[in-house]
Amino acid sequence: MPTLVIANKCYSSWSLRPWLLMKQLGVTFDEITIPLDLPDTKEKVLRHSPAGKVPILIDGDVAVWESISIMEYVGDAFGVPVWPEGRKARAMARSVAAEMHAGFFALRNACPMNLGKKYAQKDRGEAVARDVARFCEVVRQARERFGAGGPFLFGAFSAADAMYAPLVTRLDTYSLPLDAPTRAYVDTILSLPAFKEWRAAALKETWIVDADEVDEEALENYRKAA
Amino acid sequence: MPTLVIANKCYSSWSLRPWLLMKQLGVTFDEITIPLDLPDTKEKVLRHSPAGKVPILIDGDVAVWESISIMEYVGDAFGVPVWPEGRKARAMARSVAAEMHAGFFALRNACPMNLGKKYAQKDRGEAVARDVARFCEVVRQARERFGAGGPFLFGAFSAADAMYAPLVTRLDTYSLPLDAPTRAYVDTILSLPAFKEWRAAALKETWIVDADEVDEEALENYRKAA
Ligand SMILES: N[C@@H](CCC(=O)N[C@@H](CS)C(=O)NCC(=O)O)C(=O)O
Ligand SMILES: N[C@@H](CCC(=O)N[C@@H](CS)C(=O)NCC(=O)O)C(=O)O
Repeated sequence: MPTLVIANKCYSSWSLRPWLLMKQLGVTFDEITIPLDLPDTKEKVLRHSPAGKVPILIDGDVAVWESISIMEYVGDAFGVPVWPEGRKARAMARSVAAEMHAGFFALRNACPMNLGKKYAQKDRGEAVARDVARFCEVVRQARERFGAGGPFLFGAFSAADAMYAPLVTRLDTYSLPLDAPTRAYVDTILSLPAFKEWRAAALKETWIVDADEVDEEALENYRKAA
Repeated sequence: MPTLVIANKCYSSWSLRPWLLMKQLGVTFDEITIPLDLPDTKEKVLRHSPAGKVPILIDGDVAVWESISIMEYVGDAFGVPVWPEGRKARAMARSVAAEMHAGFFALRNACPMNLGKKYAQKDRGEAVARDVARFCEVVRQARERFGAGGPFLFGAFSAADAMYAPLVTRLDTYSLPLDAPTRAYVDTILSLPAFKEWRAAALKETWIVDADEVDEEALENYRKAA
């Protein structure tokens, strides 16, 4: 069975991507969690991958890193449908997944993934608004052109949904204003049993990563019991 | 025949990637060039892709954007060997390609791709040195484990080489100190006929992108005739 090395479920957006994909596609795996931002974090990560980041998938003597290439590997090695059927849908799915992999910096920086909190809506600047608008456009175009077979971006769940899942949580956490199709899509992702399983585990964690806690009063602190 | 929409050959690092891959793998294509940093650049790019960036590959009614997904598409649509044979080599090739797609920021920011100039060696800071060291490590590991069949990262030319080609030009342009295996690899890429064709076209361009010209005296200005 492969092992997925990840970080804190509350904060590690990149870890969520391949984890959710593998759960959704029924690929079983073991997990190792390396909490972020502790004195021995880097050393522990480097034990598994020379690139020094999580997630990392270990499959026998193969190590795969970078969320997007882990997802390609999952399709390649376990024969599961990571990308939509049809060359056209696949082309767009890979394009929007890659766009996420190397983009959406304003939203990522201003609104770190933090499953433990909920913040009030407020103006987060033009660059964040542009990233949100671009995501709404991705949802609209993917669903209009390829979404007929199901509630996900390309109908059935694919790596494109997995890539955007952490962004979806940010839209919710920071109460960002959305159009109706995007709101519906966000609700689809947040109500997936696999996502709920991740979130429940996140809320049990007690590590706090200060860098990912914005300096604002939270509407809700779902981890207050900790 | 597909059309690849790219930007200035002198400066557009992302454009070089799929262009070089398709040339190397014998996939013929038409080119459209949209010069960067002009008042109508964005509008022209958006005519081809809603993501607003080049490169973009247009293949009939399919539009593919993001260098890494264009390369996956090239394999998918034209049946050419974009990735190395063998699941293990492919896993590492995709991992290092994705690492480039979303990383090496210090080197990318401090040393913009600029095929028209050559600069003297100088200390470019710790973060740049770390990026260079990581690239040397990628070269060493790939070549040791999978490089037996040829002079490229994984033996035969693959998308991993294409992804790192612009970084290779920066190592040369900014005279960054390299170990011997990396120096040899850099020379392999720089002497590829397809790369020389790109470079020759770059040197004929007359557009100057100020943002990509570092504020240093150049050892050489290969475009001085312009
Ligand atoms: N581009 C990478 C990003 C991975 C990443 O930034 N991971 C973070 C955690 S979410 C990390 O490992 N940080 C630890 C560190 O940099 O020391 C991917 O797609 O996997
Ligand atoms: N992650 C993208 C990066 C593309 C990119 O940044 N392209 C630049 C030119 S090298 C661009 O289109 N700039 C024009 C603009 O942003 O208006 C990829 O892999 O293709």
